[in-house]
Parts: sequence; structure tokens; C-alpha cells
Amino acid sequence: MDKENIIKEIEEVQLDNPIVLEGLPGIGFVGKIVIDQIVKQLDAVKFAELQSDFFPPQVTMKKNGLVEHMKNEFFYIKDFGEDNQDVILLTGNSQGSDFEGQISISKLLINYFEDLNVKRIYTLGGLGTGEMIEKSKIFIAGNNKELIDEIAEIENTEIRKDEGGAIIGASGLLLYYGEEKGIDAACLMGETPGFYVDPNAAKEMLLVLFKLLKFEIDLQELNEQVADTLERLSHNPQFGQIAEPQVQKSTEDLRYIG
Amino acid sequence: MDKENIIKEIEEVQLDNPIVLEGLPGIGFVGKIVIDQIVKQLDAVKFAELQSDFFPPQVTMKKNGLVEHMKNEFFYIKDFGEDNQDVILLTGNSQGSDFEGQISISKLLINYFEDLNVKRIYTLGGLGTGEMIEKSKIFIAGNNKELIDEIAEIENTEIRKDEGGAIIGASGLLLYYGEEKGIDAACLMGETPGFYVDPNAAKEMLLVLFKLLKFEIDLQELNEQVADTLERLSHNPQFGQIAEPQVQKSTEDLRYIG
Amino acid sequence: MDKENIIKEIEEVQLDNPIVLEGLPGIGFVGKIVIDQIVKQLDAVKFAELQSDFFPPQVTMKKNGLVEHMKNEFFYIKDFGEDNQDVILLTGNSQGSDFEGQISISKLLINYFEDLNVKRIYTLGGLGTGEMIEKSKIFIAGNNKELIDEIAEIENTEIRKDEGGAIIGASGLLLYYGEEKGIDAACLMGETPGFYVDPNAAKEMLLVLFKLLKFEIDLQELNEQVADTLERLSHNPQFGQIAEPQVQKSTEDLRYIG
Amino acid sequence: MDKENIIKEIEEVQLDNPIVLEGLPGIGFVGKIVIDQIVKQLDAVKFAELQSDFFPPQVTMKKNGLVEHMKNEFFYIKDFGEDNQDVILLTGNSQGSDFEGQISISKLLINYFEDLNVKRIYTLGGLGTGEMIEKSKIFIAGNNKELIDEIAEIENTEIRKDEGGAIIGASGLLLYYGEEKGIDAACLMGETPGFYVDPNAAKEMLLVLFKLLKFEIDLQELNEQVADTLERLSHNPQFGQIAEPQVQKSTEDLRYIG
Repeated sequence: MDKENIIKEIEEVQLDNPIVLEGLPGIGFVGKIVIDQIVKQLDAVKFAELQSDFFPPQVTMKKNGLVEHMKNEFFYIKDFGEDNQDVILLTGNSQGSDFEGQISISKLLINYFEDLNVKRIYTLGGLGTGEMIEKSKIFIAGNNKELIDEIAEIENTEIRKDEGGAIIGASGLLLYYGEEKGIDAACLMGETPGFYVDPNAAKEMLLVLFKLLKFEIDLQELNEQVADTLERLSHNPQFGQIAEPQVQKSTEDLRYIG
Repeated sequence: MDKENIIKEIEEVQLDNPIVLEGLPGIGFVGKIVIDQIVKQLDAVKFAELQSDFFPPQVTMKKNGLVEHMKNEFFYIKDFGEDNQDVILLTGNSQGSDFEGQISISKLLINYFEDLNVKRIYTLGGLGTGEMIEKSKIFIAGNNKELIDEIAEIENTEIRKDEGGAIIGASGLLLYYGEEKGIDAACLMGETPGFYVDPNAAKEMLLVLFKLLKFEIDLQELNEQVADTLERLSHNPQFGQIAEPQVQKSTEDLRYIG
Repeated sequence: MDKENIIKEIEEVQLDNPIVLEGLPGIGFVGKIVIDQIVKQLDAVKFAELQSDFFPPQVTMKKNGLVEHMKNEFFYIKDFGEDNQDVILLTGNSQGSDFEGQISISKLLINYFEDLNVKRIYTLGGLGTGEMIEKSKIFIAGNNKELIDEIAEIENTEIRKDEGGAIIGASGLLLYYGEEKGIDAACLMGETPGFYVDPNAAKEMLLVLFKLLKFEIDLQELNEQVADTLERLSHNPQFGQIAEPQVQKSTEDLRYIG
Repeated sequence: MDKENIIKEIEEVQLDNPIVLEGLPGIGFVGKIVIDQIVKQLDAVKFAELQSDFFPPQVTMKKNGLVEHMKNEFFYIKDFGEDNQDVILLTGNSQGSDFEGQISISKLLINYFEDLNVKRIYTLGGLGTGEMIEKSKIFIAGNNKELIDEIAEIENTEIRKDEGGAIIGASGLLLYYGEEKGIDAACLMGETPGFYVDPNAAKEMLLVLFKLLKFEIDLQELNEQVADTLERLSHNPQFGQIAEPQVQKSTEDLRYIG
């Protein structure tokens, strides 16, 4: 079998040098929560879907017993925020289940974005710390120094200087392949414990995006989820003690390579 | 090497819009036990066999020292039950050993079922709970709301509303690919501890199928196996304490994505 | 990259309906020890070598610091034993490192054996028990009932009746592919603890082969290795307590599938 | 997707029968530290880069927040050392992430080296011992007995006589594929605990290379890293007790195969 990825377009879109916000499932589901909130509140329009033989061989269930196949979804919003930019939102219920799949899918994504004249990409992810966090900082890395510096001027952000630390999956590869296509791209990483779905980090990420992209959405649902999460965590005391985050940090202390 | 799947037909069958019952090896072997009982008691006729380079590189032994290769098997029964439906029974001693294999085989299965004019598919599996169960409930999910609701009217069934929970392997993929082909499909999941072969869940599954498909078979052999399993479990006290089921549940408590 | 397997022939051989003895690395290295002893003592002639991109990406070291690549090796002995049969001996330092590799290599082997007019195959392996063993029994399974019964007449052998138990790797697949080619094949499995190289099981295997193939070789080197192993094990008391064998047994006690 | 490896040449080089020094990431990063020091101090010129779909799907971060893709890099130094040899230095931030990748990349490397008229290859790696080491010995293995013996005359070296022990990854495969191309190749393995980046083993490796290749570089930076590592280890007492090295040793004590 030749494993295939297919982008099925529902609607042919005409977008004016759009920017992309990517929030696929990852550490703490931080990026996915952010994109889901924007899609829901701003009535983003779904225009395409990516299906792939690299997604896990499963379906997931919905609230009503109907099943859903694994997929990535593309939405757009025209004249987004005060700058009236066109925006593409990428999210989904899966990433490629192996290394080959992640590379194959990210290559397809970047080609598609190039076809759509995308001028900038923001990938949104989590940075697992393995510890409970009061207020998640948003770390930045990217393929363009000016872009990084621009974002770093926003409150509660910080350029990530973890030499050798890895950004895995689509959030990392889109920076690399973007660079090859001449598309500026930055990754925003919300600090998160890494062992549960984290609406709190998503909220801090949104607050940064509000300033970066000059828009706003309501935070009430997220605030409720934060309160609810804290409530639930208070009944799961062991969560505070899990020591192994899923994030890949460089073993900075014993590293000299450069 | 190009890995191949082949369906070898033993007999060319003429079936009238058959329904499919799939029970390949899975959690608790629930589906496989059910199909094996129907095949044996109703003299189902084997008409095809699927061989695959995606099955594990092994043979298994039979009672007499002869070996058996890995395979899936297709049986049919004409004029099955009170509705006189034609039925295809799919079982075997293996599923694809990796993600690619499971996808590749399920695609071949759905194409074959389409060729055979299959009008409906029931996939039979186990839902591991990690705990001993007095009376297994049969959960339902599917690609068609009316079909789900119809099954849910039967005693001891319940629509599965575990948002984000996964159905893995052929039992899940046949729902997805079925939907793409316009074939209604539902998955029946028998609650099972998940750490031993479970004739008890298979029996409850059969009781539901009796009503759904208007047929009956003898339960004596299954009852003996249930008694025997309980006897054996009573000598393996640790079975009651295994905490990790193989089933993939959504981590519902800390999930807000939707 | 298309991964390749190549058989490089050193000498073009003319053999008269040879029988094959396969002893590739496996549980306890039982089969490999047996073949190595026969090759060494009876001056078997190497006539071909299999190289494969499916072997692990490594070289191993020899006693003198020179390295050796991963390979399987074919030897022959003409007019072997009292029956003057031609014999092919297959051994090596590796098996395919993944499922695809094991299937791909076994298919190539059976095609090669068919070309060489092989009439019978004996695959030699270990059956891990997870426990120390006084005297290893030799278990038998195969693709031909008469062949199995013939071997089972030899002292210290027993037909393996572990329904559902698996024979993995080349020792299993050659039985399956042999059957498809019309080549009778049996697997001889020497009981072995499974967690160390076991010359003792190899010796018991040889004693059975002496009667089966009507030949004899000196056992002095093996006896020394057995004594040496026992001596070393006496200094490694924990060996006697390892609980998890590498063998795949059916979970017979809780199985009813048939 | 067909996974690809590409060597992108930055500069077309004319080298006179160069020797290769390979130091890709591996146990203790011994080889990589050595190559990085030579590249930095002797102003080696980067002339090519290898990019591969077999590298992990990630980017790593640099000190300034910019990201770096996974790659291998080729540098050259003309008229190196007292013998005025042309030298190629190979290093990078990754090796192939699976067996297929390591084989595929090593085959490409050896073909490239053949095109560049390489006459000799030294692969530099670590030999994990699982124990803290006062002074790392440099072990030698290779595809040519004369070459091994020549290196073994240098102080603090020893021919590795670990029968059956494996050299994994590019450091091993280049010996094998080198032999097939008629290129002499040896692997130098620096003893290292194996659970941290080890500048100490790298320093001992360099001292051997000074004599082998008749050159010298400053050791001050390495000495500082050694001191710093010791300081840090003194605060991580558990490092001294880790029992499982990543190295593959033959289980010599219980092995008789040959």
C-alpha cells in the first residue's frame, strides 16, 4: 500500500495573503483549545479537510454515539481583527502516528499553504514542564529573528533560549519547511504541566494572540474550564507529583556541544 | 518488498444484500468467540480467506501439532434468522500487526464487502473496563443514527457517549470506510475486564444479537466456558486487581475539547 | 529506499533433493549452536550468503578486532549420514529486525530452497520455559502429520499440542511457506530457560537429530560448554529466578477459542 | 511518500585522496565533541549538508530562539597535520531515527565518499561502560587488520576483542560498506559511562588522534568542560549509580557461538 494524504476542499477560497494559526493536538492540547475557541466564537468557515493513512487506525466517538474519523480541518476568517487580515485556522483530532507520517503531512501542509499565498505561520503548542504552573508564560522560537523579536515585545512572552531543545511534530516542521518556502513562521509555546488538558495555558496563549493579531474573543468558557480543571485536580492530588513531562528539553546542564 | 493482502476465494458466492458480522481478535476476544459459536452451530460455509504480509511473522499450533498460518476467514449463511437475511461472518486468528496493516486490510475488506453488495455491517468488539463485571452491558456506536437508535432499543444495550473515546482496529475502521461507501455500520462493544478471554461478555453479546437478527443458537458451550473461567479465575486472585485495561478511553474528566 | 535482500552464491552447487537444517539466532541460540557444531565438525562447505537491508544497522566484532557484517550463511554436506542425503545447513548472526524483514527474508529463502529442489526442511529453535531445566525435551510441530509422527517416535521428543501457541520468525514461516510450495517441514524446539545461550538444549537436539538423520558428531565441545555454563550460572544465582521467558505461549488456561 | 536523503553541496571541492573523520551523535557524544573541536579550532570549511526524511520530525532551538533543522554536515581541511593530508569532517545533530534510515543514510555516505576518492575512514564513537571512568581508554575495531594494528601502537589504545559485540549506526555501517568499496576504515571507541555528554572521553580520543594524524589543537575548552562536568556530577550523586549503559556488549560470559 502507498500511504496517502489527501486534502479535500469543501469550498474554493480566495484569501488575501492569509496568515495561518496551527493548533493540532499536542502537549496539554494548548494549541487545539485556542483554535477551537476562535473557530467557535468567530464562526470560522471550514473549507477543507485533510485525511491521511498516517493517522491512527481508529475512529473516535461523539456525544451522540456517532463516530468521527481522524482528520485535520482548515477554517478561514476574512478581515480578521483590527488589521483586517485573512486568517486560516488549522486544527484536528490527530497528528501523524509515526515519524514518516508527521514529515509527510507537514510537507503537504506547507505546499498547500504556499498555494494559498500564506505569508506567515504561527504554530501553537505546549511546553511541558512536569510541574504545576501558576501563570503560564508563552515562549517563542521561529525561523525569522525579526518576527521572534516582534512577538517578544508582548507581555508575558519570552524568547526560548533552550539550546538543543526540540520542537516536535507539525509545530516544529512547519518552521523548517516554511523557511525553505520563504514563509516566516514562529512557534508559540504555552508552559503547561504536560499531563492533562490545560485550558489555563490556552487562556494565556489567547491573551498574547489578542495583542499580536489585534482581536478579542470572550474568555468566559475558558475561565469556566480553568475553574473546573482546578476543582478536578484538587481531587486528584497525585497530579501535582508526576515527575516526567512529555516535552523534550535539552539536557542543558551536561551539554557542551555547539 | 511491497507488502500484500490477498483474498483467496474458495467458492464464488451469490448473496442477496448480505449483512456482515465481524469478530476478529480483540479485547477479551469477545467478537471472535461470538462468531466462532455462530459458525460452528449453524454450519456456516467458508468461502474465502484473507492472507496478508501485515499479519505477524509466525504460525500457530493446533491441537495435533500441525501449524496454521495467520489469516482472516469469510463464512456465509443463507436465509439466516426469521428475516431470512444472507449473512457474512468474518473472523480469523490475527489482525494487522501495525497501523499500516490495519488500514490496508480494512480498506480491502470494505472494497470486498462493496463488491458483495453488503448493505449493513456489525462489528463486534470488547470494551475493556479493567474491572471484574457481573453482567456485561453491550455498548453501541456507529455511522448512522437510525441504526444506533434501533439497536439501542434492545435490552441490556446502551449508546456509547464517551466523547473522544476510540474504537481501534477493524471494528472502528469499517465504520469509517463503510460510511464513505454508503454502507451503514455499527459497532457492538461488550464490557469486559480486558485481561482474559471472556465468554461471559460474548454470551451477553449473543443475547443482543438474537433479538437484533432474530435467530438463536444454543448457549450451553458458552455457559460451560463461563463456569470454567470463573473457576479458573478463583485460582488466580490477582486477576481481580489488574488496574490497566487495554481499552482507550477518553480522559473525560479533564477534557474540554470539542 | 527499497530495502533489498540478496543471496550471493560463492559456488554453484548440484545437490540431490537436499534436506535443509535451519538454525538462525533465536531463543537460547539452540538452533544456531547445533548448526555451528555440525558445520565445524563435518567440514560443511559454504556456498552462499544472504545479505539484507532488513538486518540491524550494525557490525559485530570478531576476536581479532576485525568486524563482521550481518548475514545468513548457506553450507552444504554431500552424502550426509547413513542415508547419504545431501544436506543444506542455514545459519547466521541475525534474523530480520522487524516483521516485514522476517517475512521478506523467509519468502526469499523458500524460493531459493525450491530452486535447489529441497524436499524437506527442519527448522531448529528454542522453546523458552522461563525455568531452569534438567533435561531439555525436544518438541515437534510441522506442516505434515506423517513427518511429525515419524519424528515423534524418537526418544525424548513430543508433539507440541499447545493450541494457539506461536512459532515466530523463520522457524515458523518456513513451515507455512514450505506448505505452499509442497515442501514438508517440521520445527524441532528444544526446551530452554530462554534467558541465556543454552548448549545443553542444543546437545539434546543433536541427540534427536543423530537418530532422525542417521549421523553422529563428537559432543565433547558441547559437554564442556554445558559444564562451563553450569559453573557460570552457579555464580549468577539470579538467573534461576527470572520469571519472564521470551517465548510466546498460548494463554491456554483461559482460552476457549477454536 | 518515498523518504529521501539529499546531499546539498555548498562548494565543489577538489580534495586529494582525503581521509574522513566521522563524529555523529552517539553514546556520550564522544565523536561529535571531537569533530566540533577540530572544526572550530582549525576553521574547517563547510562544503555540503545532508538532509533526510529519516531524521526525527523536529527542529531544535539555538541560543537566540532561531530554529535549526536536523542535518549532517561535511567540512574539509586541506593539508591537515604534518602529513599534509586532506581531511573531511562529518558531524551533525542527528542520525537516522530508525534502522532503515541508518542503512539508507550510511549507503549514501559511502557512495559520496567514494566519489570524493576517500582513501580511509575513521569513525569516532563512545563505548558505554555504565560506570564512572577515571581515564577513558580508546578501543579499536575495523575492516583492515594492518590499519587496526597501526592504530593500536598508540598509547592508551587497545584492539577491541569483544567477540559478538556490536558497533551500531553509521560508526559501524561505514566499516562494512567501506569494505565493500575497498576503503579501509576503523572505529575508535572512547570508553564513557554512557549516561551523559562526556568531554573527558573526547579529550582522550583527541590525544590518540594527535598521534595518529600528526596534528594538535588546544585542549583548554575541553579541559574546562571536563572540570565543569565533574563539578556538575558532584551535585548529581545518582549518576554514579546508573546501571544500564546504552552500549551493546556481547554477553560474553555465556556465549559459545563461533
